[in-house]
Amino acid sequence: LAGEVLGIGRRAASLAAAERVGAVSRSTLNLAEGVAEADLIIVCTPVAEIVDHVRSVAAAAPRGALITDAGSTKGWIVGQLAADLAPGARFVGSHPLAGSERSGAAHADADLFAGRVAVLTPTPATPQTDVAETARLWQGLGAVVCELSPEAHDRTLAATSHVPHLVAYALAASVPEADWPFAGGGLRDTTRIAGSDPDLWRQIFATNREEVLCALERYERELAALHEALQQRDDARLSDLLQQAKRRREGGIG
Amino acid sequence: LAGEVLGIGRRAASLAAAERVGAVSRSTLNLAEGVAEADLIIVCTPVAEIVDHVRSVAAAAPRGALITDAGSTKGWIVGQLAADLAPGARFVGSHPLAGSERSGAAHADADLFAGRVAVLTPTPATPQTDVAETARLWQGLGAVVCELSPEAHDRTLAATSHVPHLVAYALAASVPEADWPFAGGGLRDTTRIAGSDPDLWRQIFATNREEVLCALERYERELAALHEALQQRDDARLSDLLQQAKRRREGGIG
Repeated sequence: LAGEVLGIGRRAASLAAAERVGAVSRSTLNLAEGVAEADLIIVCTPVAEIVDHVRSVAAAAPRGALITDAGSTKGWIVGQLAADLAPGARFVGSHPLAGSERSGAAHADADLFAGRVAVLTPTPATPQTDVAETARLWQGLGAVVCELSPEAHDRTLAATSHVPHLVAYALAASVPEADWPFAGGGLRDTTRIAGSDPDLWRQIFATNREEVLCALERYERELAALHEALQQRDDARLSDLLQQAKRRREGGIG
Repeated sequence: LAGEVLGIGRRAASLAAAERVGAVSRSTLNLAEGVAEADLIIVCTPVAEIVDHVRSVAAAAPRGALITDAGSTKGWIVGQLAADLAPGARFVGSHPLAGSERSGAAHADADLFAGRVAVLTPTPATPQTDVAETARLWQGLGAVVCELSPEAHDRTLAATSHVPHLVAYALAASVPEADWPFAGGGLRDTTRIAGSDPDLWRQIFATNREEVLCALERYERELAALHEALQQRDDARLSDLLQQAKRRREGGIG
């Protein structure tokens, strides 16, 4: 897939760990040096920093190098970059739907993307050859590639990822300290992603605020319906709502 | 642990499946026959039926046989049985904190209880020897036994299990059909328990209504705080809430 994978980061210790597990072939703390001979650059920083990093990369990389990212929101990032990326620079937004609540090279997994969906978010101005080249990267890592507009991506991910994270954080916060010794697999799984980096997720929520609020309100309406059925002792309604929810999940996940 | 395990059920096919996987040594559709020579009877039906089944078992089992259950709510069950169980009958409420969204002998697992918590809910009137004998059952299956009053059990489980199930059902219902192909591990895990039997869970919610509503309102306040911080673009507050939630989970699960 690549002759050489060069890791660029801010902390020597993180880069050394990435070299140790074989995630990169060599590494540097200097961005300009690191991208000087690159064909393809993947910006994997927290979402709030992606735009600035792509601009820095575009200024330092060889003309014709392709730049992509792995950020969980796309409208804000792609919109900013469409407005003022250096002439000749090539950027295609990516979001591989994989990862976990853990971070760092110690949790690296060569099969992380196998069988997972990678979303590409080209704009009408993105050349089809750039999209195809970005698709080959993710396909080479085993992912199934699909294309969405940045807006459709953010609307969909608000429902499938961003609101589930908010819900997991709220649920984790709501369980009294003394009750955790009685946590079973249900609480463990529903709150797993509340172990995610709060700073990273604050940025994701903030850069997709409107869509997250919209999907959150849809979720709150479902929860309120269950709350009301329970409070009103309306067992028939409660039963309907639970069955519909189970069917919705089975239809989606199988 | 037992000379013989006799399975009693309503469907011959389910019992045949249980025999096939070795979960029971033999089986019968007749409750009175099945318990006629039993030393220990475990009632594992949905919660709404447990009280009636324990009464039937107490009437048919040998004098001195110990009866327990595996229901997810305890106050209602233990209260009903304390009022009018046949004289000489011995009952101790149990709730092993294990299982999954799947049901049936096809999903049986001999190590299901290994390292898990089994809660016993004796009343002040329960003889200590009955508690000890029930504890030996769950310990023999590898569980760690602890005792709670039926009321404390229901208050705790409302937070650690019942509300997480409501949340998972609401979340599954809130994701539009068209968005499910973009479900990642986060949505999959947060909604896993929405695959649970709706009829079983309606009964659990209904027999622990007050505590579930109380824990649900606590959860809704946490969610409302996140909603408000997001809506008001209060990033400092949002960051605090996310960090508190992550710490709460780490303190509980490690």
